[in-house]
Amino acid sequence: MKAISVLGSTGSIGTQTLQIAEEFPEQFKVVALTAGKNIALVIEQIKRHQPEVVALSNTSLLPELEQRLKALPKEQQPNKFPKLVGGPDGLNVAASWESADLVVTGIVGCAGLLPTLAAIRSGKDLALANKETLIAAAPVVLPELKKSGSRLLPADSEHSAIFQCLQGTPWAENARLSTGIPTPGLRRIQLTASGGAFRDWPAKDLAKATVADATSHPNWSMGRKITVDSATLMNKGLEVIEAHYLFGIDYNEIEIVIHPQSIIHSMIELADSSVLAQLGWPDMKLPILYCLSWPNRLETPWRRLSLTEVGELSFRSPDNEKYPCMELAYAAGGIGGTMPAVLNAANEEAVAQFLNEKISFLDIPKAIEAAQRNENL
Amino acid sequence: MKAISVLGSTGSIGTQTLQIAEEFPEQFKVVALTAGKNIALVIEQIKRHQPEVVALSNTSLLPELEQRLKALPKEQQPNKFPKLVGGPDGLNVAASWESADLVVTGIVGCAGLLPTLAAIRSGKDLALANKETLIAAAPVVLPELKKSGSRLLPADSEHSAIFQCLQGTPWAENARLSTGIPTPGLRRIQLTASGGAFRDWPAKDLAKATVADATSHPNWSMGRKITVDSATLMNKGLEVIEAHYLFGIDYNEIEIVIHPQSIIHSMIELADSSVLAQLGWPDMKLPILYCLSWPNRLETPWRRLSLTEVGELSFRSPDNEKYPCMELAYAAGGIGGTMPAVLNAANEEAVAQFLNEKISFLDIPKAIEAAQRNENL
Repeated sequence: MKAISVLGSTGSIGTQTLQIAEEFPEQFKVVALTAGKNIALVIEQIKRHQPEVVALSNTSLLPELEQRLKALPKEQQPNKFPKLVGGPDGLNVAASWESADLVVTGIVGCAGLLPTLAAIRSGKDLALANKETLIAAAPVVLPELKKSGSRLLPADSEHSAIFQCLQGTPWAENARLSTGIPTPGLRRIQLTASGGAFRDWPAKDLAKATVADATSHPNWSMGRKITVDSATLMNKGLEVIEAHYLFGIDYNEIEIVIHPQSIIHSMIELADSSVLAQLGWPDMKLPILYCLSWPNRLETPWRRLSLTEVGELSFRSPDNEKYPCMELAYAAGGIGGTMPAVLNAANEEAVAQFLNEKISFLDIPKAIEAAQRNENL
Repeated sequence: MKAISVLGSTGSIGTQTLQIAEEFPEQFKVVALTAGKNIALVIEQIKRHQPEVVALSNTSLLPELEQRLKALPKEQQPNKFPKLVGGPDGLNVAASWESADLVVTGIVGCAGLLPTLAAIRSGKDLALANKETLIAAAPVVLPELKKSGSRLLPADSEHSAIFQCLQGTPWAENARLSTGIPTPGLRRIQLTASGGAFRDWPAKDLAKATVADATSHPNWSMGRKITVDSATLMNKGLEVIEAHYLFGIDYNEIEIVIHPQSIIHSMIELADSSVLAQLGWPDMKLPILYCLSWPNRLETPWRRLSLTEVGELSFRSPDNEKYPCMELAYAAGGIGGTMPAVLNAANEEAVAQFLNEKISFLDIPKAIEAAQRNENL
C-alpha cells in the first residue's frame, strides 16, 4: 500500500490521480490533498478518500470548508475529521506529510514550486507534473534532490515515455534518476508534439486566433494554460528543458517531432542507433499510474492500444516560423542559469494576458522575447 | 573482447556478423567459422578474421580449401593455419569451440539444428538466427538450455525488438531468458510484418506469382528461402511460434500486424496497457550487434533513424485468406509437440519445390496442410 499526497487535487492531474487511487484501492491510499478554490469538489474528494490532511492555498476559505464538512449528514462525514491547513505553510504541511510515500505535484505554474521543494526536503519521491520545478528552479531543486535522496518521476506523457524506455538502460539505476548526470549510451531524445490547436492552421491565420481556438486541443484533455502552451509549442519547449535536467542530455540531442496522432509519446535513441518508443492512447492516467506503481506495473482493464485501428502514424519536423516559442525555449535552455526561469515566468504572464484577452496569440512569443531582452513589450 | 563462432559464415547473417566483427575489432574476434560450398568467400573470411577453426559441411571440399589456403602468397596466409574440419562432426566442433563465448547460428533450415545443439550442450550463449532451433526442436532444445545454462539471444529483427523492449522488465532477469517461463506483466506481443513481396498484390493474382516475384522483398535483403517465407507470411507464423517459446507467452496474445515500412520491428504490451516498441531502419546488423554486445550497447556510426524522413508508418491487420500459412502456423503452435516440426519441414520442402518451379506459389500452403493432415498433395 503506497500512501499518496496529491498537490492540486481539483486540477486535471489531481482528479486523474484520485481516479487511479479509486481504481486501485488495494495499492494506493490518499493521505493528503491540497486545493485552491473548488470547495465543493474538495468535499467530495474528502468523502471518497478520507485524507489525513487537507490544505487550501487560500486560508480565508478554511472556515467555509470546515463548516460545510461538519454540516454533512452523519453517514457522509469522514471517519476521522482531517486536519485542515491553509496558505503556503499549509501546502508545505500537506506536501511533506509524514505518512506519504509519494507526492503528486499537480499544481500548475510557479505556485507549485514551494510545496514541491517542501516534499523534496522531506525526502519524498515525487510524481512530477509541475513543469516549473525543473524549468524555473533546477538550480535550486537539483542540489536539494541530491541532499534528500528524493527522486523525480515524470508524470507527463512525454517524459514518462522516455522514463519507461530507459528502464532497461543504466539510467534506471537510482544513481541517475533525475540527477542530470548523463546516461552512457543515451544518444538522443525525440519528444513528440501533437502540434496543438493550430497544427493544421496556416501560419498567416494565427493573427486572428481567439482564446477559444487556442484552448481546444485536438488530442489531449488538459488545463487551459497548458493547452495554450501546446498551441504555441512552448509546452514542448519547456519539456525540452525538463528533459535536459531529468535525463542529463545535451540540448542539441533533444529533438521535437510533430506527431499529430499522439500515439508515440516519445522516443530514445541509444548509442547503437536503436530507437525505443512508448506508445498508448492519449490518456494521462497511464503516465500517472506508472509514477505511482514504478518500478512495478499494475494490471489495468484500460482500453488496449490498437495500431490497426489507428491505421497511420505520421511525423514531420516543426515549422520554426510558426512556432517561435520553441526556439525561445532552446535559447533559454542553452543560456541556462536563471534564463529558463525568466522564459517560464514571461510565458506564464503572457499566456495569462492572452487568456484575459489583453494580448493576441502572436503577442505571446513577442512578450517572452521582450522579457528575455529585459524590456517591456 | 568477446570470441565469436559463426555458423553459416557465407550466408546473409554470417556475412553481416563478420562485417560487425570488422567494425568493432576491439570488441569481437572471430574464432570459428562454418560454411557450405562458397570456398572463395571462406578463404577471404579466413584471411580477414584469422579464425582458429573452419568447418565445411561438405567434407569432400576440405582438400580444396586446404590447397587453396596453402597456395596463397605468403603475405596473405593466415598467421596461424586454422584447424580444418568437415561434415556434421566438423560443424559440431566449430559450434562448441572452446574459446568461443558466443555462437551465431546463421545456418538456414534444419541443417542448423545439430550444430546449434552442440553449442548449447557446450554451454555457449547463442545469437539465434536459425528459426528451426525453437520451431522444430523446442521440446529437445528447451531442456538442454536448462541443463547447460546457455541463453538464446534472438538475432532476427522482430524478436530482437521484443528482447530490447523487455530489458526493463522482470523478463530480463536471466532466469527467464528463453526458458519459456511467462513474464509477469507481459500481456501481448505484436509482431510486425512487412507483408512481403505480395503485400500490394490482390489475392487473386497470387496464382501467377513466379519465383522471381516471390524472392524480391520490398524492405529487407535476406536469403531466398526466407524471402519466400515472407511472401507467404509463413515467416511471421514461424516467428509467432518462436516468440511463444522465447518469451513464454500464449499464442492468443501474439498478434501479427502488417506494417509495410518495417520501421517498428515489433512491440510489447505490458499489464498496465503501455506499449513499448523498438524502431530502426530495416537492417539486420543492429539486431545481430545487439546479440553480440548484450547486455551492453556499442556506439555505432550507423545511419540514424529519422521518422520525419519516413513521414508515415502504417498498420493493418493481415488478411487470413491471402496468407493461409499464418493460420497454419498458429494451428500447429496450438497443437504443440512435434506439430511445429511437421509444419516447418513441410514448409521447407514446399518452398524448395516452389523455388525449383515444381509447384506454384499457392500450392505452398496446400502442401503444408496436406503434410499436417499426414497426406500427400
